[in-house]
Amino acid sequence: MKVAFIGAGNMGTPMALNLIRAGHDLAVYNRTRERLEPLGQAGARIANAPDDAVRGAEVVITMLANDHAVREAILESNAIDALARGAIHMSASTISVALSKELAEVHAAIGQGYVASPVLGRPDSAGAQKLWVMAAGPPDQVNRCRPLMDAMGRAVTVVGEEAWHANLAKIAMNFMLAAMLETMGEAFALVRKSGIGLDVFLEIMNGLFNSPVYTNYGKIVADSRFEPAGFRLTLGLKDIGLALEAAQDFAVPLPVASLVRDHYLDAMAHGRADADWSAITEVSAKNAGL
Amino acid sequence: MKVAFIGAGNMGTPMALNLIRAGHDLAVYNRTRERLEPLGQAGARIANAPDDAVRGAEVVITMLANDHAVREAILESNAIDALARGAIHMSASTISVALSKELAEVHAAIGQGYVASPVLGRPDSAGAQKLWVMAAGPPDQVNRCRPLMDAMGRAVTVVGEEAWHANLAKIAMNFMLAAMLETMGEAFALVRKSGIGLDVFLEIMNGLFNSPVYTNYGKIVADSRFEPAGFRLTLGLKDIGLALEAAQDFAVPLPVASLVRDHYLDAMAHGRADADWSAITEVSAKNAGL
Amino acid sequence: MKVAFIGAGNMGTPMALNLIRAGHDLAVYNRTRERLEPLGQAGARIANAPDDAVRGAEVVITMLANDHAVREAILESNAIDALARGAIHMSASTISVALSKELAEVHAAIGQGYVASPVLGRPDSAGAQKLWVMAAGPPDQVNRCRPLMDAMGRAVTVVGEEAWHANLAKIAMNFMLAAMLETMGEAFALVRKSGIGLDVFLEIMNGLFNSPVYTNYGKIVADSRFEPAGFRLTLGLKDIGLALEAAQDFAVPLPVASLVRDHYLDAMAHGRADADWSAITEVSAKNAGL
Amino acid sequence: MKVAFIGAGNMGTPMALNLIRAGHDLAVYNRTRERLEPLGQAGARIANAPDDAVRGAEVVITMLANDHAVREAILESNAIDALARGAIHMSASTISVALSKELAEVHAAIGQGYVASPVLGRPDSAGAQKLWVMAAGPPDQVNRCRPLMDAMGRAVTVVGEEAWHANLAKIAMNFMLAAMLETMGEAFALVRKSGIGLDVFLEIMNGLFNSPVYTNYGKIVADSRFEPAGFRLTLGLKDIGLALEAAQDFAVPLPVASLVRDHYLDAMAHGRADADWSAITEVSAKNAGL
Repeated sequence: MKVAFIGAGNMGTPMALNLIRAGHDLAVYNRTRERLEPLGQAGARIANAPDDAVRGAEVVITMLANDHAVREAILESNAIDALARGAIHMSASTISVALSKELAEVHAAIGQGYVASPVLGRPDSAGAQKLWVMAAGPPDQVNRCRPLMDAMGRAVTVVGEEAWHANLAKIAMNFMLAAMLETMGEAFALVRKSGIGLDVFLEIMNGLFNSPVYTNYGKIVADSRFEPAGFRLTLGLKDIGLALEAAQDFAVPLPVASLVRDHYLDAMAHGRADADWSAITEVSAKNAGL
Repeated sequence: MKVAFIGAGNMGTPMALNLIRAGHDLAVYNRTRERLEPLGQAGARIANAPDDAVRGAEVVITMLANDHAVREAILESNAIDALARGAIHMSASTISVALSKELAEVHAAIGQGYVASPVLGRPDSAGAQKLWVMAAGPPDQVNRCRPLMDAMGRAVTVVGEEAWHANLAKIAMNFMLAAMLETMGEAFALVRKSGIGLDVFLEIMNGLFNSPVYTNYGKIVADSRFEPAGFRLTLGLKDIGLALEAAQDFAVPLPVASLVRDHYLDAMAHGRADADWSAITEVSAKNAGL
Repeated sequence: MKVAFIGAGNMGTPMALNLIRAGHDLAVYNRTRERLEPLGQAGARIANAPDDAVRGAEVVITMLANDHAVREAILESNAIDALARGAIHMSASTISVALSKELAEVHAAIGQGYVASPVLGRPDSAGAQKLWVMAAGPPDQVNRCRPLMDAMGRAVTVVGEEAWHANLAKIAMNFMLAAMLETMGEAFALVRKSGIGLDVFLEIMNGLFNSPVYTNYGKIVADSRFEPAGFRLTLGLKDIGLALEAAQDFAVPLPVASLVRDHYLDAMAHGRADADWSAITEVSAKNAGL
Repeated sequence: MKVAFIGAGNMGTPMALNLIRAGHDLAVYNRTRERLEPLGQAGARIANAPDDAVRGAEVVITMLANDHAVREAILESNAIDALARGAIHMSASTISVALSKELAEVHAAIGQGYVASPVLGRPDSAGAQKLWVMAAGPPDQVNRCRPLMDAMGRAVTVVGEEAWHANLAKIAMNFMLAAMLETMGEAFALVRKSGIGLDVFLEIMNGLFNSPVYTNYGKIVADSRFEPAGFRLTLGLKDIGLALEAAQDFAVPLPVASLVRDHYLDAMAHGRADADWSAITEVSAKNAGL
């Protein structure tokens, strides 16, 4: 397929590489041009602007940091006009429910398709083609994007026929992950301050939950290996903000999410914006006087 | 081994049965006598009182609901005197760090041993000999109890040489479980209120965490199958109280535990004391107007 | 002075009436025209649009519900162009720090003044000319607006030279009020459920705090007199959102504000959007099973 | 009246002095004997033990730090036997609802009276005879103690006929005070980090609430004058614990109290056990990176 790929960050680059490997024809764009080099070397055409990237594409994939970046790349650039009628915007970024609804409307109004396909997984999973793709949108459009999703992940789950359903599911999963990290931070603080070995506690935790997520993050946190960030703390704060925003729209109290947000702000106030989002666990340690 | 087993509740009964099956010689006691019948039929001697049960035992195992019950059965009965010098109290109940410290001192002062061996797992795991045993205490005493632990569980982890270390580890694990349930309740409330299917969300959650704990509880909660209780909500409230009490002793703030406690009180105020502790998820649903 | 007054709600109408009574020459505008009648009868000129209102005015006062309404009335209408160079926008609405900063820049760029003057007090205080005005902005501009502030309130406090300082102070005060209401709700739930008379508890509370705020709200809450709303619950939710937004910009965790927000969402989910914001106390009562 | 007074701390000493000044005949006891000197010089008889103090007394007043101290002085000493039948135990300490219920039963069973009379106010108020006394118990017993209450305070409020009602009211008031301090700490952190002057914010806060409590604590906090403590932080933690304990008995969630408790633990973990309880505000400042 002829694909435009916008966003060459930690996640976007390996995702785009997997698409190239799968034989798709990519045009790539990123605001910071240097980040496009590996994709150029792998055979992608390097575009000068979003509209340049999307011209002629059957599908434009966006994999950007936040609402603002997606808005800028698609809605506030010429890309929206340059994209062919009948082409599909496949939005893989973790964006707000509100923006996803807006994009669905805008694209539909001018005869373009719109599918949300946020992914679960960290950069190494992206590289290993092991992302989990949550897809939502009109079924025929989701189906047309399916080969691209398959090229990037190990599994695709169709969440619903409204594109924003996938965004909400992704936001809710990231909330669950952040809550798990916060809980781990509190438990570890108690365990460490009581003098019990963290290694034996990890053994029990892993034995009980028997989950790769707990195992991986347990090790990162026990080793305080927060740099380089697999997923930056500011992005964790952004995502918990998206959860709270969606929860407000639906009038759903999320007290654990509120607490996680406050601990991310505490971490921000202590200079941890660029650490991995699991550095939220340092807040519990600090507040316990460790 | 000659074993006294005190406490024939949902967990104690299958644990004692496994000991009998492994060939140990059991005397059993329970305040409500009728509950002892299955054990008597399996070959255990039914004792009339704690001191009657412990007489001649090499090890007395307690598996009771809370601090009060253990205090009553051992410290405030004649059992403490009737137990032979050199015998070991193996305390499998989830009790407070403070009581575990007190028991260690009292037993040591009169030449008895004391080992803490709280277990992870629900009644069905107990029946299937699949409990996870966290053991702590003087190494030689832990070793002497080892055959009993092996007869009850699939694995034993030695947490430390102070018996209370095992109690704290257990308390911390139950806190992590309760926090996971609370988080699930909040996420499910958001997902349900937004109109997304809970089944597809469960699929994603299970795909991501890939943990039997999430899978089992996810199903229980999605089906609102809170009765009969595998682990009663009042016991969940008790355990979160033990976590907060231990955390206070070590000056460790545990905001998620505080929040979980408040939601357990909300559930209590709405008549859910006897439901499974995963019914904490109903609180988030109720507060969202579901 | 020649004044344009935009916004004739529960607060705006009595404020504008006080300006007319003080002898100022008013042109008034409101999206819902019927609400302007009392002002027209009092001698104000009724304008057809924001730009019509501001034409010829020395000062335009906005007293609107939220950021969106202020943005629409000033930035996204022709009013910004119709307002004379040298004239001042005196913004009395409770708006975000971010919008206040934006307004200061936009007005300054085209030679207009901008002063923030949010007020403390409920509609009856506005009617009785007993509002407390928090003013901020360039000192000469604040001084020029002083006669108008004096006509509306019992006192003016100059918060700083940056207009947004007054907005932040107002937002922080509303947070303190909302937190006081939440605390009252929790204390009342405990007192009521224990069977102690609320009247005697109010007597103690008022004896201790000796504050008209506690006295007034204590009575409203004890009588469940949440309708008609003096200050609507949705506005309380909006204001706590402004506090959390500002706190995020400055990386300040505000856990009590987070909790208040969750309880406002709980109230919203139970149909209390239009009740007085002190109906947050019903949430604590409900969650206690009262 | 012939009065035994047990407890010569920061509060007890000025209270006892006021009783002496009012002409009552006092026998005083305190575990640390040196603290009794000022009372001896003022004319009180210094007793060697609680039972020595209560012998011959019509009323024994306890003003001690916590449940443990009251239990030790009355229930676990010979004082309970030495106290005359018909005499009254007037318990001014802030103790748990549970202990107050127990004391009422124990005293009644042996023909003694029991009245709870916790007080609101700090040491300087105690010295100035300006405490607020919350009294509860059988009306005739409360009446007999009335002259003593009048000698110590500016006002007496009768809360109910069950002694524990006064304890619960006191606990609820201290919760409201602690919540107010926590809120102040959060608001001040936001205000300070934004660069607004704290003095102008205090002016607005005091103008709005117009409460001596806000004025006094606002000044203490703004000046960071946390030593010497008027009311020690550990006592604040104890009292919030009493509120949470009572709330658990009545199944009432108190999320603000939970949060206050966590912040007191944070303060404890940072060495502030002996600071004034208003030092809880330092936690919000610290967590905001100030």
